[in-house]
Amino acid sequence: MVESVRLTEDAVVILDQRLLPGEEKYLRLTSAAEMVEAIRTLAVRGAPAIGVAAAFALAQEARRLSRLAPDEFLGRLRQAASALRSARPTAVNLAWAVDRVMGRIEGSAARASLSPGEMADLMREEALAIYRENREMDMRICRHALEVIPDGARILTHCNAGPLATAGYGTALGAVIHAHQQGRRVSVWVDETRPLLQGARLTAWELEKAGVPYRVITDNMAGYLMSRGEVDLVLVGADRIAANGDVANKIGTYGLAVLARYHGVPFYVAAPRSTLDLTLRSGAEIVIEEREEQEVLTVLGQRVTPAGARARNPAFDVTPASLVSAIITDEGVLRPPLDRALARLAPPAGPGAGVPQAAGVTAGAIAGQGEKEGTSHA
Amino acid sequence: MVESVRLTEDAVVILDQRLLPGEEKYLRLTSAAEMVEAIRTLAVRGAPAIGVAAAFALAQEARRLSRLAPDEFLGRLRQAASALRSARPTAVNLAWAVDRVMGRIEGSAARASLSPGEMADLMREEALAIYRENREMDMRICRHALEVIPDGARILTHCNAGPLATAGYGTALGAVIHAHQQGRRVSVWVDETRPLLQGARLTAWELEKAGVPYRVITDNMAGYLMSRGEVDLVLVGADRIAANGDVANKIGTYGLAVLARYHGVPFYVAAPRSTLDLTLRSGAEIVIEEREEQEVLTVLGQRVTPAGARARNPAFDVTPASLVSAIITDEGVLRPPLDRALARLAPPAGPGAGVPQAAGVTAGAIAGQGEKEGTSHA
Repeated sequence: MVESVRLTEDAVVILDQRLLPGEEKYLRLTSAAEMVEAIRTLAVRGAPAIGVAAAFALAQEARRLSRLAPDEFLGRLRQAASALRSARPTAVNLAWAVDRVMGRIEGSAARASLSPGEMADLMREEALAIYRENREMDMRICRHALEVIPDGARILTHCNAGPLATAGYGTALGAVIHAHQQGRRVSVWVDETRPLLQGARLTAWELEKAGVPYRVITDNMAGYLMSRGEVDLVLVGADRIAANGDVANKIGTYGLAVLARYHGVPFYVAAPRSTLDLTLRSGAEIVIEEREEQEVLTVLGQRVTPAGARARNPAFDVTPASLVSAIITDEGVLRPPLDRALARLAPPAGPGAGVPQAAGVTAGAIAGQGEKEGTSHA
Repeated sequence: MVESVRLTEDAVVILDQRLLPGEEKYLRLTSAAEMVEAIRTLAVRGAPAIGVAAAFALAQEARRLSRLAPDEFLGRLRQAASALRSARPTAVNLAWAVDRVMGRIEGSAARASLSPGEMADLMREEALAIYRENREMDMRICRHALEVIPDGARILTHCNAGPLATAGYGTALGAVIHAHQQGRRVSVWVDETRPLLQGARLTAWELEKAGVPYRVITDNMAGYLMSRGEVDLVLVGADRIAANGDVANKIGTYGLAVLARYHGVPFYVAAPRSTLDLTLRSGAEIVIEEREEQEVLTVLGQRVTPAGARARNPAFDVTPASLVSAIITDEGVLRPPLDRALARLAPPAGPGAGVPQAAGVTAGAIAGQGEKEGTSHA
């Protein structure tokens, strides 16, 4: 499996998702500022993956700054945390992960007695815990999702919620790959997902590698396929889920949910608990990122519209809970009424929740360890 | 206004729509075979425009072959007609226009006494009549459409149903431009319309030229905009309309119709009577063209998917009459029940219906004449 985000001794290494599927190039980021840029430009993307990437970047920033005096160290780190937190607004995992890594030192009564180097070690431990838990949550989501993926299912998915999107096994797409590996004869309709083509570029790439049968379609073909009975279920990821079960996800998800309801096709969302934002009563409170018009006016950098053309570019939309058949979380498949099901969930882990790791252990080593724990993912 | 299809003394001249908006290049086609290729590859596209283009090409083919003996002349012409008729399967205007031009000589009892040159002149007359009537039908559609386009309307359209698509004033998009010229403050959401981007490339280009405010969106943004109340009506063209009011149009139209119904947004179709196919009871009988996978796997020739990727590429879909709020025809606005309203319509003109034109009059001259008749189109 591809390692899209990895922490080394002195850098965060990410697979540059902007260049896929044409080129597999890794970027070595040594500062939080570089990661902010990487997140903004979607070199790393996917709600859980940007959470992990930001956590790693903050830990790396702490190590980089650990020779400073404690006050300056903390001041600079808080600035970095703030910049990372606001690199993209819609996915909650980003803010959640940053806050959790900072919380490991900010909340500590014993902090006054720690050196910057010791604080940096704690942050690194926390970032690696997030990474490891992320993978474990993915694994549990993949297993629970078998409940909604029958043998022979023709699954429509949108954007990319595979390993690239989570720095783990993936959520929605991870579940499909897992079902395939378990012997279920699934096939996938891959929405290309304009403007940035995460479906055509990334989901197709992941399915190709995994050997899962799929066909790419343009985003406007889903209704046609549903009307002909060629879609058995829709399965997508999420960027933020409100307390009432409203789901923010990649633009176009909402339209699919309406189409699915119209055709009596189940519409499933797969997401770890770190994607829940129970502080929001409904999706109306979720900030939708508007990205630059150029992404719509061009395709892969090539201008497609006439001079003078303008565009809109909301990057996400909100699907109301009423259109969601179930949410597949790491704690199980939640069925409507979703507000009640979500309220019963245990909150995701807080600072220090992870099993402590020896400082300096690389993400790669942890990944290997995770795989020995018995997941069926290849 | 751009002249997308024009008949000269010895050729059909078309604006190559594949190159827009980057380049305005005209192709001079002197044989039916060249036109078949131009239609297949979408150098000329839009249901009414390919009807006119095929009629012109057949007339030009007749002139080109007019030195042959009568039997060989007719044999070759029938072959050309058959090739043109089947260049694309979904739009009915193509077969309708070809049959009408052939009918001018095939149906004639006096044919035995005519020379190939005289037959070629009759066909030319018929082709020019189709062209002229097409423009007149567009004009009437534009006027009738004012009934459904209120001042301030934010109109969502899909694909391209402007002057480029009809070799006239346009249907759905012509109506929007006309409303703008009549002083109605309209604005347009332009669906980019993957895979071939007729919205982003052609509709945006036409609106830019006409000075109508618009924004380009990706096809998956329509639902989001409707959910926020930013769409007042949907207005699209059609490629074939069955007797019960089912409408075949560019892939994605059906999804928009479902979204419009879900949000209580009116969904209108604009089409001339030449787009009606009352021989079909319902849309289930309409042949949907499946085009080559490459169009989906690439964008403007640039590969976006991984090696090995496959795609589906239905070029059209069928919107059931139950989702259509009204069909705006050259004879007026038809409201549900559409089957009855369509049955009451007079059939479109048959062979020889047009006012006879002196042979050799160019389409350009006729266009000039048409514009003097008092249309408000600039």
